Amino acid sequence: MSSDEADDLVFKALADSRRRRILDLLKDAPRTTGDLCERFEGVLDRCTVMQHLGVLERAGLVIARREGRSRWNYLNAGPFKDIYDRWISAYASEAVDLLARLKRDLEGPVEA
Amino acid sequence: MSSDEADDLVFKALADSRRRRILDLLKDAPRTTGDLCERFEGVLDRCTVMQHLGVLERAGLVIARREGRSRWNYLNAGPFKDIYDRWISAYASEAVDLLARLKRDLEGPVEA
Repeated sequence: MSSDEADDLVFKALADSRRRRILDLLKDAPRTTGDLCERFEGVLDRCTVMQHLGVLERAGLVIARREGRSRWNYLNAGPFKDIYDRWISAYASEAVDLLARLKRDLEGPVEA
Repeated sequence: MSSDEADDLVFKALADSRRRRILDLLKDAPRTTGDLCERFEGVLDRCTVMQHLGVLERAGLVIARREGRSRWNYLNAGPFKDIYDRWISAYASEAVDLLARLKRDLEGPVEA
């Protein structure tokens, strides 16, 4: 698979709000597939959640590990780091940090 | 437009290798539409380049500014920063940096 094809998979996987929601849930800690299905209960059926997880896994955004009868899903930060490195040059990164700091200072509490 | 719809536009715009290539060209400095068209000469015609620029602009990934007869296209780092902030938590960010440093050390020249 070429690097372009791999990137296509990443961005196509991210172009769906339900898959982005799954990644949000995996951001702070890995979760079992059962746990993820529970969180989407009434919104997505188990089969649909597993299909979305498959798309995320093929894109390399989720890494799955079997443990007994459970399947643990981990967010892979690598592709996000690649996106950041590709388009935010050192200069832009500094500028973005500066703007974020400025915004924080402007919105922060006024000191006496 | 909801935040989900805005994110859809961003990732659909990024899910095309030619649009990613345009963003690569804008990474270090803004470029005129004419300059971008020249760089794709023989690959994409002017009309196609402008269509792709339109998709990138509607997604907020490119900001365009008119100056006389030229249209200058700027990369907007904001959406990339949002992607990074959304999925790479402070903890993950540290881990990613650590791994990058480790990789660099392992691949670096052996010191005497």
